Amino acid sequence: MFYHDGKLQYTVSVERPNPQFAKLLQQAIGGVEGEIRVCLQYLFQAWNSRGPKKYRDMLMETGTEEIAHIEMLATAVAMNLEGSSMALKEEMAQGNPMVESILGGRDPRHILSAGLGAMAADSNGVPFNGSWVVSTGNIASDMYANVHAEASGRVLATRLYEMTDDAGMKDMLAFLIARDTMHQNQWLAVLEELGGTSINLPVPNSFPESRQINEFAYSFIKTGINNPDSQSDKGRWAMGPSIDGKGTFHVRLAQPMGQEPSLAATDPTVHVQVQQMTEGSMKTESFIEKAKDFITGH
Amino acid sequence: MFYHDGKLQYTVSVERPNPQFAKLLQQAIGGVEGEIRVCLQYLFQAWNSRGPKKYRDMLMETGTEEIAHIEMLATAVAMNLEGSSMALKEEMAQGNPMVESILGGRDPRHILSAGLGAMAADSNGVPFNGSWVVSTGNIASDMYANVHAEASGRVLATRLYEMTDDAGMKDMLAFLIARDTMHQNQWLAVLEELGGTSINLPVPNSFPESRQINEFAYSFIKTGINNPDSQSDKGRWAMGPSIDGKGTFHVRLAQPMGQEPSLAATDPTVHVQVQQMTEGSMKTESFIEKAKDFITGH
Amino acid sequence: MFYHDGKLQYTVSVERPNPQFAKLLQQAIGGVEGEIRVCLQYLFQAWNSRGPKKYRDMLMETGTEEIAHIEMLATAVAMNLEGSSMALKEEMAQGNPMVESILGGRDPRHILSAGLGAMAADSNGVPFNGSWVVSTGNIASDMYANVHAEASGRVLATRLYEMTDDAGMKDMLAFLIARDTMHQNQWLAVLEELGGTSINLPVPNSFPESRQINEFAYSFIKTGINNPDSQSDKGRWAMGPSIDGKGTFHVRLAQPMGQEPSLAATDPTVHVQVQQMTEGSMKTESFIEKAKDFITGH
Amino acid sequence: MFYHDGKLQYTVSVERPNPQFAKLLQQAIGGVEGEIRVCLQYLFQAWNSRGPKKYRDMLMETGTEEIAHIEMLATAVAMNLEGSSMALKEEMAQGNPMVESILGGRDPRHILSAGLGAMAADSNGVPFNGSWVVSTGNIASDMYANVHAEASGRVLATRLYEMTDDAGMKDMLAFLIARDTMHQNQWLAVLEELGGTSINLPVPNSFPESRQINEFAYSFIKTGINNPDSQSDKGRWAMGPSIDGKGTFHVRLAQPMGQEPSLAATDPTVHVQVQQMTEGSMKTESFIEKAKDFITGH
Amino acid sequence: MFYHDGKLQYTVSVERPNPQFAKLLQQAIGGVEGEIRVCLQYLFQAWNSRGPKKYRDMLMETGTEEIAHIEMLATAVAMNLEGSSMALKEEMAQGNPMVESILGGRDPRHILSAGLGAMAADSNGVPFNGSWVVSTGNIASDMYANVHAEASGRVLATRLYEMTDDAGMKDMLAFLIARDTMHQNQWLAVLEELGGTSINLPVPNSFPESRQINEFAYSFIKTGINNPDSQSDKGRWAMGPSIDGKGTFHVRLAQPMGQEPSLAATDPTVHVQVQQMTEGSMKTESFIEKAKDFITGH
Amino acid sequence: MFYHDGKLQYTVSVERPNPQFAKLLQQAIGGVEGEIRVCLQYLFQAWNSRGPKKYRDMLMETGTEEIAHIEMLATAVAMNLEGSSMALKEEMAQGNPMVESILGGRDPRHILSAGLGAMAADSNGVPFNGSWVVSTGNIASDMYANVHAEASGRVLATRLYEMTDDAGMKDMLAFLIARDTMHQNQWLAVLEELGGTSINLPVPNSFPESRQINEFAYSFIKTGINNPDSQSDKGRWAMGPSIDGKGTFHVRLAQPMGQEPSLAATDPTVHVQVQQMTEGSMKTESFIEKAKDFITGH
Repeated sequence: MFYHDGKLQYTVSVERPNPQFAKLLQQAIGGVEGEIRVCLQYLFQAWNSRGPKKYRDMLMETGTEEIAHIEMLATAVAMNLEGSSMALKEEMAQGNPMVESILGGRDPRHILSAGLGAMAADSNGVPFNGSWVVSTGNIASDMYANVHAEASGRVLATRLYEMTDDAGMKDMLAFLIARDTMHQNQWLAVLEELGGTSINLPVPNSFPESRQINEFAYSFIKTGINNPDSQSDKGRWAMGPSIDGKGTFHVRLAQPMGQEPSLAATDPTVHVQVQQMTEGSMKTESFIEKAKDFITGH
Repeated sequence: MFYHDGKLQYTVSVERPNPQFAKLLQQAIGGVEGEIRVCLQYLFQAWNSRGPKKYRDMLMETGTEEIAHIEMLATAVAMNLEGSSMALKEEMAQGNPMVESILGGRDPRHILSAGLGAMAADSNGVPFNGSWVVSTGNIASDMYANVHAEASGRVLATRLYEMTDDAGMKDMLAFLIARDTMHQNQWLAVLEELGGTSINLPVPNSFPESRQINEFAYSFIKTGINNPDSQSDKGRWAMGPSIDGKGTFHVRLAQPMGQEPSLAATDPTVHVQVQQMTEGSMKTESFIEKAKDFITGH
Repeated sequence: MFYHDGKLQYTVSVERPNPQFAKLLQQAIGGVEGEIRVCLQYLFQAWNSRGPKKYRDMLMETGTEEIAHIEMLATAVAMNLEGSSMALKEEMAQGNPMVESILGGRDPRHILSAGLGAMAADSNGVPFNGSWVVSTGNIASDMYANVHAEASGRVLATRLYEMTDDAGMKDMLAFLIARDTMHQNQWLAVLEELGGTSINLPVPNSFPESRQINEFAYSFIKTGINNPDSQSDKGRWAMGPSIDGKGTFHVRLAQPMGQEPSLAATDPTVHVQVQQMTEGSMKTESFIEKAKDFITGH
Repeated sequence: MFYHDGKLQYTVSVERPNPQFAKLLQQAIGGVEGEIRVCLQYLFQAWNSRGPKKYRDMLMETGTEEIAHIEMLATAVAMNLEGSSMALKEEMAQGNPMVESILGGRDPRHILSAGLGAMAADSNGVPFNGSWVVSTGNIASDMYANVHAEASGRVLATRLYEMTDDAGMKDMLAFLIARDTMHQNQWLAVLEELGGTSINLPVPNSFPESRQINEFAYSFIKTGINNPDSQSDKGRWAMGPSIDGKGTFHVRLAQPMGQEPSLAATDPTVHVQVQQMTEGSMKTESFIEKAKDFITGH
Repeated sequence: MFYHDGKLQYTVSVERPNPQFAKLLQQAIGGVEGEIRVCLQYLFQAWNSRGPKKYRDMLMETGTEEIAHIEMLATAVAMNLEGSSMALKEEMAQGNPMVESILGGRDPRHILSAGLGAMAADSNGVPFNGSWVVSTGNIASDMYANVHAEASGRVLATRLYEMTDDAGMKDMLAFLIARDTMHQNQWLAVLEELGGTSINLPVPNSFPESRQINEFAYSFIKTGINNPDSQSDKGRWAMGPSIDGKGTFHVRLAQPMGQEPSLAATDPTVHVQVQQMTEGSMKTESFIEKAKDFITGH
Repeated sequence: MFYHDGKLQYTVSVERPNPQFAKLLQQAIGGVEGEIRVCLQYLFQAWNSRGPKKYRDMLMETGTEEIAHIEMLATAVAMNLEGSSMALKEEMAQGNPMVESILGGRDPRHILSAGLGAMAADSNGVPFNGSWVVSTGNIASDMYANVHAEASGRVLATRLYEMTDDAGMKDMLAFLIARDTMHQNQWLAVLEELGGTSINLPVPNSFPESRQINEFAYSFIKTGINNPDSQSDKGRWAMGPSIDGKGTFHVRLAQPMGQEPSLAATDPTVHVQVQQMTEGSMKTESFIEKAKDFITGH
């Protein structure tokens, strides 16, 4: 169960409201790198957790913290949408003739739909999408997703930091950037605790390795041709022991090991063109005809 | 530029076509864990790469390999949609009365829209979405995204492996599972080559750490209350040196450091209800009124 | 800022896990009528609130309560995905020949993607979409959105209640149904407090009614023709004082008051077919040509 | 069946075409508050109506009227995209050096995709989404959805009205604003006719109230803590008879009545990490293993 | 402006309601091949039409007809959702033990969300998407879109026809199939009237052909390698005069004519990893730094 | 299987980087008219092809070529995002006061999310959507989809061509425009080879025409009323032999041939309002009640 105290986790202040920056901040709220995503991601991972208990408990803590980050950013958006008339008035006083570009760089829905408030959307107005919420049940897979989420989130926050000189906004972002530092470390700490790459990899480590076709489990496959300058095999991934310690990296030129596909002719009841139905290849029977008969009791 | 040779990277065979399994395989084609995603993700990372050259070259190799994986899976879907009338016929011969459930577990669009072929959609028919393609420009962030993509992809492939006893399908999946092993190792090899966590973290490592509010960069914040049994601080993330070696993990109880938000009253031209406009808080001027005047030349 | 105590708001128990019911429950988590929507909706309305303060405070309370409802339902999904092998085993023991339908009615991603956990998606696996989160800034408009959200949410919960006989699930739903009763009353209480329909309508009530074309503000317009049996004007909306008390309902037959549209010919640089460019109607100049010249400095 | 007469319901004229305003108008066509949504919403409610007949008849009338509103707005978009070269020419004559912002505030797809025409998308180019079409079958729930749709639609129209001084556009919007007034009244008239809140609430009113957990049906639950200044319980929703007349509002402090969730360990065949499989909690049997056996005939 | 008469364009009857078939019919309502798409597509093409007038007039006729097709199909869905309890009762009477599959093949939202009515979604419950509505302004491009829409629509309708033996449903589909025949012919008649392929191609025909790189305008480019059995150049597209009569088809082996891409190093303010910033390639200046300075008045 | 050589199909050069043009180019990458769509569309059509073999072989060639087009455009986007600081610096030197519009016309995610790289999205940042990938299995239907895809793609490319004076960009677009010419001809060549309209139409030509209701297969239905000036029947579609040669075009006034729909009353367990349940029309039995009993073993 959840509670709130009505205050922000960290101060949010805006020296000079800027509706363009409000638009950019939306990326950190409803974008794929944003806080709604990490909030739901950690909470769903917690709620779906089937043990050990300490990981569930820990995910709950941080998932709950992230709600407060959405709150801070939504507040920052709303504050950046205030008082913007001031700047406009100054510009107008200077008689700027370029009348049609005044809304350039703003999100029109901040006015039209949200009445000067924040939305569950990214910086282009594309709505938050639940498909971004990762919770696979496999803790190593989820931790790598979480590290990436915090890495791309911190990259985003530093880019936002560079795009403003508003001291209030820089301060708020400097706090969020610090939290992203912790969270990157936090998810990697889980992986370390679980044994590091030599134990965790390949994810999932519960699938017997003997069942994979091991011959290809440590081959770097070159699909490049006619490209003598390519440096694709000049890296760590092409030689030496594999990161999981279970194989040796080596290079293999791509070559087909499979057949040229040849599908059976289509069932006539899916109504392709008659020219596509060549007598010889009609090796399947009619699926739909039968399904229909079955459904309708024939 | 790209070329093909019309053959499959690895043999795809189906002993007994199963339209239900065709539906499940769609997750590995057009799902968030699927091959269209990793294919476009590695190719966009390559195309957007601004150096060093060897990473671009390497990403191109693997991005190109993934097209062949989509090809294998699409072929597997098409093959699983063949000949299914056989099984139906047997069941019908046994006079199964449950006529309405015969299509249960199948994707109706495999017949209606695709004419017994594969689609760019997941196992529920939800279309592939370009927002899943991660290419941030920051190579550490992208490598963690790639490790997760291959981890969740391998988890998916092992689950599909468990859900079939078709020897052909198991063989194909065993190959793909091996490739996912390599690719997990491959992306982690890049991170190792770039210096490992002590160099790469926090991502981005090009943002001066002095600018983040360091006091909160290594704190595990407990948002839990009234929960004495919680084990949330019983892990590696709560004590000891941080993973990046730049701080020491410690625990902090959540408490607000920010204000209770109080936004300025809304501009009257956004047309909230009159009851919302309380005289005292009307500290903003009319933004839209001004924007309108400006746009229309008043 | 937000806190949690790790316990559920109300007991969640499942007598007999049912993966089909897990699929149905997803509608109440990530569907348009679901709890993620109302949770974010009330929180965004609170965060965007520009007064009076008591409405912000009140919205925060209920938005926070809704997180606990997502938590209960996610837990219920995870519990319904457990132990289902029991039922399967029994059926198998009976030699059911209809082997292909065993997954019918289940969400395959509950296994493939979520590892027997809940997802941020609806009962068809369609992801939650941020466009459903309504926060217009106008409190009357938002309250009507909220009443509908709770009405459709309660309708959904009662339908789920009818589809299970599991005593645990029925008890959980009976609790949620009661909360939806309160929340419907709660949002209507705000509207009453703000003066009821005579004050609030038409929403927004801050737009001078003299500026709307009043002649059509209380007309029921009949677009039906040749339909003598129609009862469309036999209701309260066709006669008597309007609900807002500011007009009188009356009926009007639909008839066009506007012109037949005739658009200017297209600019040649948008490259329609030459046959579409009829000399006579070329009254516009070339927009793109000019835009291009301007952009490129010509 | 449907007919048209090729004329507009109300005059659409544009004094000075403005491609920025064309972009804003898209919100009223393909946005969540727009006319495609209400058009389809009322028509689907009519088509799905199972009585009484007069409501179906009435919904058909208004659903059909809304097609004409889409038509008016699409025409307005197309007209606002004409002749815009004029303004550009003037600006160019003044040697404006800010060449890169000339497309700011325009929707690039109005040129690139639509060739100076309207699209089925919102003001950010996000496509119309069918999930917005509400038709629950429960008339009270649907009427509240309709009131909100018309309230947010009228709010949007008044905001658009404020953002233009074009007399033609203002006249068109003044007409649409008047129609929204009628439609708000119309849907509330249905609710009044059906007995008002004392009869309709809680929606659905066909679920026996004795089956809900009545103890929580009229409680305002405070999830706020440590916030003495909160005014969340200073409203109508916290005291007095409930709006439906079936209970008395009262305040309750949030406290967990449920357990701390503890899920059964995951089935090994979903391939979590081995470290997640702790012997003691393995109380479930293998679901997938069994499903597989069953599917494949083992 | 639009009108309706409350009757169906063609009789809709259902002999034996079938909720599975209701699910399949959804593809013809809200799917990419469905009637909402063609309805909006033709109406938007009409509303955006800038001449000649007869095409606008004609598109309005057919766009309006398509509303009646949505109406017929929505009615068919609602009728197929009735009375299904009969079939269930029979099955139950036979003691079918496979209790979990009874909802297999049904759309759960037909009950949960729509209360036994139709929805604006496809057969998998994926919502209608406005991006499918094609209106480019170029009439030849649009007519080919329309031919495809009617071709895939007729293919869908014939597949639905095959999957039912309900005489009522077959009769309704036979009518819709006939209308699709007309509409395919109708759109091709426009292309014929505009001069056929020799005049219309390449679309757009208003772009001076001298500006395209003509050398590649009639080359079939073979990207296949090592595939001697390929028949890819054994068709009409590889030899003889081109369809537009403006060139001669010929075959060309794919070979790169462009450079190996080498992008400038990234601006440091986008915060890639420091290891990506190699001194030598730093040829760009800092864009964001400058943008920031500019925005913030430095 | 697929290969690459690391070089571009055709030279991509940019004289003067323009981040606005980068945004416009995104439409050609991830838009509905873009290259990801055609690439996947042709590849899926090839992979799903069930004969004749030469069509599969041919589709593979062109699908593979299209990957190179995505590559060219992604490179062009990345190049247009370089060095843009130059232009900004000049403008700043001129003291342009309109500080808020500097990002107008740019995609903020090019900086925030992609770090100056290309994305799998359109020019408004709306992600690529897999629903656009057409592969019906019917070759005539698919070829018309392909002609449209190349027609709208060439229209888009010519519009982009008009919007830049950058010689490098014009050269690249001139190449792509030529390829679109070939591809339009190519898909029509398939249709010619398959017998042209007289053989292919109506698509699918494998459905016995006697089963459609032939009386309506060649009627142009006028839904327009009260519109004497309409020219809707003044075209080729209203008279003369049909394009497929199987009928004669003629005009029919729209009139309903079907009934006024009257649905059975709703099952009480879907919980409509009690006022909707009128005794007389309760002809259906309770579906859900029965389903529930069945599921739960009652």
